[in-house]
Amino acid sequence: MGLKPSGIITLLTDFGLEEPYAGIMKGVILSIHPHARLIDITHQAAPGSVSGAALLIKETYPFFPAGTVHLAVVDPGVGGVRRAIAVETDDHFFVGPDNGIFWPIIAGAESAKIINLTESRYFLPEVSNTFHGRDIFAPVAAHLSRGVDPLKTGAPIDDPVELPLHEPREKDGVLIGEVVRADHFGNLITNIRREMLEKFLGAGRPVIRVGELEVEGLAGSYSEKGEGEPLAVIGSSGHLEISVNLGRACDRAGAGASGRAVEGMEVRVFRSKTRLKENIE
Amino acid sequence: MGLKPSGIITLLTDFGLEEPYAGIMKGVILSIHPHARLIDITHQAAPGSVSGAALLIKETYPFFPAGTVHLAVVDPGVGGVRRAIAVETDDHFFVGPDNGIFWPIIAGAESAKIINLTESRYFLPEVSNTFHGRDIFAPVAAHLSRGVDPLKTGAPIDDPVELPLHEPREKDGVLIGEVVRADHFGNLITNIRREMLEKFLGAGRPVIRVGELEVEGLAGSYSEKGEGEPLAVIGSSGHLEISVNLGRACDRAGAGASGRAVEGMEVRVFRSKTRLKENIE
Amino acid sequence: MGLKPSGIITLLTDFGLEEPYAGIMKGVILSIHPHARLIDITHQAAPGSVSGAALLIKETYPFFPAGTVHLAVVDPGVGGVRRAIAVETDDHFFVGPDNGIFWPIIAGAESAKIINLTESRYFLPEVSNTFHGRDIFAPVAAHLSRGVDPLKTGAPIDDPVELPLHEPREKDGVLIGEVVRADHFGNLITNIRREMLEKFLGAGRPVIRVGELEVEGLAGSYSEKGEGEPLAVIGSSGHLEISVNLGRACDRAGAGASGRAVEGMEVRVFRSKTRLKENIE
Repeated sequence: MGLKPSGIITLLTDFGLEEPYAGIMKGVILSIHPHARLIDITHQAAPGSVSGAALLIKETYPFFPAGTVHLAVVDPGVGGVRRAIAVETDDHFFVGPDNGIFWPIIAGAESAKIINLTESRYFLPEVSNTFHGRDIFAPVAAHLSRGVDPLKTGAPIDDPVELPLHEPREKDGVLIGEVVRADHFGNLITNIRREMLEKFLGAGRPVIRVGELEVEGLAGSYSEKGEGEPLAVIGSSGHLEISVNLGRACDRAGAGASGRAVEGMEVRVFRSKTRLKENIE
Repeated sequence: MGLKPSGIITLLTDFGLEEPYAGIMKGVILSIHPHARLIDITHQAAPGSVSGAALLIKETYPFFPAGTVHLAVVDPGVGGVRRAIAVETDDHFFVGPDNGIFWPIIAGAESAKIINLTESRYFLPEVSNTFHGRDIFAPVAAHLSRGVDPLKTGAPIDDPVELPLHEPREKDGVLIGEVVRADHFGNLITNIRREMLEKFLGAGRPVIRVGELEVEGLAGSYSEKGEGEPLAVIGSSGHLEISVNLGRACDRAGAGASGRAVEGMEVRVFRSKTRLKENIE
Repeated sequence: MGLKPSGIITLLTDFGLEEPYAGIMKGVILSIHPHARLIDITHQAAPGSVSGAALLIKETYPFFPAGTVHLAVVDPGVGGVRRAIAVETDDHFFVGPDNGIFWPIIAGAESAKIINLTESRYFLPEVSNTFHGRDIFAPVAAHLSRGVDPLKTGAPIDDPVELPLHEPREKDGVLIGEVVRADHFGNLITNIRREMLEKFLGAGRPVIRVGELEVEGLAGSYSEKGEGEPLAVIGSSGHLEISVNLGRACDRAGAGASGRAVEGMEVRVFRSKTRLKENIE
């Protein structure tokens, strides 16, 4: 007895929105499962960035009903030797390339069935070498959302491709993390989780440096500081963020106008001796 | 006996489409109301521009079925002291921050119930300081679309935040308005409504100046002029627009390539004595 | 006895995603047919490019269930003398301007009923000169998706506007085609179909030149070459594509950063005497 599908399929790709590719995948899905409910996460994932997409999926999926199928196609190795997989955890399904895109899901799950998609009766009749999103992943997602058991779509495997997960580390009394991405508002989202930060700080107060920005203390919200002032907050996904109230932290940090360039910038947190502000919560 | 919900929820935000935030809000909604029908208006509203978003909502909502819930999150004050509200007019629901975003709706409605959202049982269990779209507005919108009475979600208020509405004025025989925004085609959309213009012109013929552009007369459609010629039309929302046939009026007006920079540019309409062209209709 | 509608309506426009126009069309459709299922193909078609949109529609529609209504609004002649049409082929409906946007569909169909939309009872009560997507096409599409016979919406015509279809030609032993567009990844998609290429090559091996790029042979997938190496593949729509593995072919061809500028670039295929690689399939 497997997980019952919700009928919802989410889509995450790096296809962009000028192309018809996302629409084509939806046509394929609706041809197989006319009542599937389709929700776009983004089609503007950083082109070819498997690690960026992996983080987006991990942040997004828990807000969907149990039994949702999450279809993710950031697939620079399409047509090569990489496998196609479906993953079933305790509460969600995932379909896409075996390139590490689901590794944070698999690594964090209580249990996960991982299936190498080999049963071509669940694919389109003709499979191209360049668009497995249309030919393999969309049809398999549609079948899973109708209740097909993932075990029917191929053979279980236990060696999925792993993704190096960059975890913050402590060195010489400094907590060292990195910027994961800049969001649409220019906020710098880091890989430092609230719990790590609280444990590191104890009763101290943080001084945070990223590029040319230095921030002292933690604010409770963006609007706590004056216009143009930098601030640090625990963002909506529970990670430390560096922001500028009504401004763009990514520009101010010296990373240039393009948000993409900030990925991987070092973030250093120092502990000062003054008391931690109460509004860390 | 309140308004019966249509089951449709529209979404308007400034979150952009590279981020998973709009998708996360949809997951939250579907977890509460699995049969809600979700329609994106835009997620690329000008970042932080409450007045711009307010005009988009006012232009859009009347085309939806009665009982639709309109969820709008352009919310630079998130996490600060601003209230969260729901509005019920005679025929539609609105959910978002109390920052003036719904003021044109409230000001124009026969009657409007305004509720300060305080009943946390309709929120997500944990409410962040940075993403009320996910934690408060999406869940409340989902509950309203299922038929929860807005009065149950908080306490009625009668002092919503107002928005200065820039109305055109007449001075020394000149009608002075402003550009509200440039659309995707570079057309300059003004705040001058057809009725105002007709009343001002009487039997006269308009000469319209905006930046470096001057247009005489009103055209019936974009294609009435030759390629590259400027023209003035009554656009699809009933407002005066300055366009360039198969070109970009926003560039030609001297505002540069970015459409955003034209917001607030002065538009002056002079009355010439020749007869008004018949095709103003 | 006509074609049975699937209840699905696809939307393709050049309105962009910052504007509320696509959302407004959806509101109009749902007001007429509350259970219509709406799927975006793109709202970022090249502004005013009828031929570009025509190719997108032709590539996309076959993946949708029979009886789907395809609504397309790239309409630089709106408000002028161009007609509004609906097309019914053996398996799909199409609604939009009579400017050639459906010509590849009509030219390729076994049979096609073409209707000049004149019955204003299927339009919005008020029809503007600038937004027929909202006032004519969206309401007609909604009515068709509910089962209204297209013949009721106007009068049949047999002289739809045609579109010049650029077909590759052979001259002095060289196959000469052109670039149709660059996709989101910078791949150059040509108008040379797999069958033409195979027929032209016979047992030979291709040398392909486009701008400053030269490629020898056909690869089976993007990842077959090293990073930054150019390659030619048969892409997902069955056309010859010039790509750069993990790079952007459109930049490398000398067409500059903007994908749009490549449209119409000449592609020349020479036949060398060595054997055709086996992986053309």
